[in-house]
Amino acid sequence: MSVPVSPLAPKTTPHAPAIKGVRLATAQAGIRYKNRTDVLLAVMDEGTTIAGVFTKSKCASAPVEWCKAKIKAGKARALVVNSGNANAFTGKNGKSSTALTAKIAAKAVACKEGEVFLASTGVIGEPLDANKFDGVLETLATEVDGDRWIDAAEAIMTTDTFPKVATATVKLGKTSVTINGIAKGAGMIMPDMATMLSFVFTDAPLSAGVLQALLKSGVEDTFNAITVDSDTSTSDTLLALATGAAAEAGAPKISRASDPRLKAFAKAFNQVLASLSEQVARDGEGARHLVEVIVEGAVSKKSARKVAFAVANSPLVKTAIAGEDANWGRVVMAVGKAGEPANRDRISIAFNGIRVATRGERDPSYNEEQVSATMKESEIQIRISLGMGKGRDRVLTCDLTKEYVAINGDYRS
Amino acid sequence: MSVPVSPLAPKTTPHAPAIKGVRLATAQAGIRYKNRTDVLLAVMDEGTTIAGVFTKSKCASAPVEWCKAKIKAGKARALVVNSGNANAFTGKNGKSSTALTAKIAAKAVACKEGEVFLASTGVIGEPLDANKFDGVLETLATEVDGDRWIDAAEAIMTTDTFPKVATATVKLGKTSVTINGIAKGAGMIMPDMATMLSFVFTDAPLSAGVLQALLKSGVEDTFNAITVDSDTSTSDTLLALATGAAAEAGAPKISRASDPRLKAFAKAFNQVLASLSEQVARDGEGARHLVEVIVEGAVSKKSARKVAFAVANSPLVKTAIAGEDANWGRVVMAVGKAGEPANRDRISIAFNGIRVATRGERDPSYNEEQVSATMKESEIQIRISLGMGKGRDRVLTCDLTKEYVAINGDYRS
Repeated sequence: MSVPVSPLAPKTTPHAPAIKGVRLATAQAGIRYKNRTDVLLAVMDEGTTIAGVFTKSKCASAPVEWCKAKIKAGKARALVVNSGNANAFTGKNGKSSTALTAKIAAKAVACKEGEVFLASTGVIGEPLDANKFDGVLETLATEVDGDRWIDAAEAIMTTDTFPKVATATVKLGKTSVTINGIAKGAGMIMPDMATMLSFVFTDAPLSAGVLQALLKSGVEDTFNAITVDSDTSTSDTLLALATGAAAEAGAPKISRASDPRLKAFAKAFNQVLASLSEQVARDGEGARHLVEVIVEGAVSKKSARKVAFAVANSPLVKTAIAGEDANWGRVVMAVGKAGEPANRDRISIAFNGIRVATRGERDPSYNEEQVSATMKESEIQIRISLGMGKGRDRVLTCDLTKEYVAINGDYRS
Repeated sequence: MSVPVSPLAPKTTPHAPAIKGVRLATAQAGIRYKNRTDVLLAVMDEGTTIAGVFTKSKCASAPVEWCKAKIKAGKARALVVNSGNANAFTGKNGKSSTALTAKIAAKAVACKEGEVFLASTGVIGEPLDANKFDGVLETLATEVDGDRWIDAAEAIMTTDTFPKVATATVKLGKTSVTINGIAKGAGMIMPDMATMLSFVFTDAPLSAGVLQALLKSGVEDTFNAITVDSDTSTSDTLLALATGAAAEAGAPKISRASDPRLKAFAKAFNQVLASLSEQVARDGEGARHLVEVIVEGAVSKKSARKVAFAVANSPLVKTAIAGEDANWGRVVMAVGKAGEPANRDRISIAFNGIRVATRGERDPSYNEEQVSATMKESEIQIRISLGMGKGRDRVLTCDLTKEYVAINGDYRS
């Protein structure tokens, strides 16, 4: 991990406070990396509810299949995450490996195997030896502590250059509740339900159904609106866990997603998801520029999103931004290939608020010097007005640099 | 153009013989490049038929719009192609520029404006000054010659590192006829009807309708089955022109696509398209490896193609190949994200005939050394068996290297 920290990283990692009912510990299990932590154990109190969204990949990993099966019951007592090996495309071996890991964890924290949730990230196709967790999880279970959020975020990193943590405190009823989230992800990022791995915890007393509803709506404009390289992981997993411990302090128990008392909480929850997903885009492999693509005037939000992703995933747009070149012609190209309703002669494009193209041709006031100067900023906003309707959407991405190619030409070997 | 020739270039450029009824000339019009030709004039005898397929981009260039309008009549006397400026997203200026170019060309070769076809390639969004053709086209019209195929292919290059020429001779009835084609394209290549620019000429006496049917069927497994970077150009144009001159030597006039005498011709025609499109993939910007992705056992050919393109367009698969890393886990990832029917536990994958994964896990006989050795070849075949049905397809692509990023970070500025 000698790669320098992304220049787009947040200046500081937020301090996330302890959440009653959740304790964390990390260790070096030696799965792949040397001299760094690679396994996280989170232990939750009884009564913790869980919800999740997962990759839509047809080749989902063994842990994703495990979680999908167990999450129906909505109860969680332990979460085991490892980095270095994704346990994906590992056949029967992968299945028995998840079962053995759950067995070891259940014994260590004294819960049922079905209350153990698993996530793995790293190389695809290598068998994961679950025996490596034997002993390690027992020890971790004795070490867990409430104040280890940055440690937790570090243990789940692969090619990430910084740990991703977000936190929010909000009133539920008259009681303060906390939401903490961690995430990892830097490449193979075009989440199609969630990013590679992210875990959000709260002490709010929410039913599993409410958590699921919050997640489903929350990911739409956060994790499902980012892309690094258009590639969707086999391991995408976003879990939300609610210990309910704030009920003791008077927080109301919420069991309907339509409960009006949930409004402020839902907003804070979405802010945590937005922060984590933006951090993933900021840590895109090799990234030097954060790119926000806004599409407005589309026939619908869905159409706007398709156009925005066509731009955000275009290698030619991304390399132009890496080269700090205001090559708006490539934005036109990407809009054109999206296949969504568009009329060339109504399109306007602006970089960081400077209009470069208007109604199908170069803006009359176009000033190359001014536009070139703005491309040197580390954050680039591309705003595209289609002039077709009222649909609007926004996605986040990063540029495509030589470092991305270098990182991904060497990663496995 | 100090970029070295692609290591994947054919060893020699084929000598294409003269085709009766077609004469070519090239010149330096100074549109963008210095010290190289950038304009091609092809003059055809009266009676020449024409057909074409074009980009599906919603932001098609002005010349594409011109050709689409004029091709309905099916008659061609002149073709003007320039490199250095795509005349795309140039609004009314673009439209008047194509009209003026056609006017100049029609005067130079003494034909109707509607019999002039135009294609432009290069930067998007810069106005194209058609006055630059004034004088130039008149001179070219006096210089045209039948034996200038390599010159013609060179004049239409942009970031191409070698001229792309293909030729075939075949019997039509009892008479030998010739098919010559040229193409350009190296980046912004995911043709959705055709590559950026390609022109195929024959002396066979074929009606415009027959030519159109040949093109429509021919592009399916050639130009529509390649990708360099998943980006579709605003200028994709593939024109086929038939002078009919071979009729004098006894070739039968063909006016029905179902005519059985067309069979051998159609095969040779498709071979020319296949050769040209393969050359485009071989000249993919920065390419160091030609990659053939074969998907078999899909539920249909269409489904196989979607999976093949998901693999061929995956930045992570392409960078792994650039790094000569047999990272088949990324192939699994790309199959998974394609969204087509697939069952993880039935998938097998082979690199250059060496099976690396079988039925959902690493092949029992996997030998890293043997697989690593084959990744050093300049041509990599990825064969994916889905085990779902009988659908099969094949697409060609190239790897994603640091040079691609360098070329595209600097191209415009």
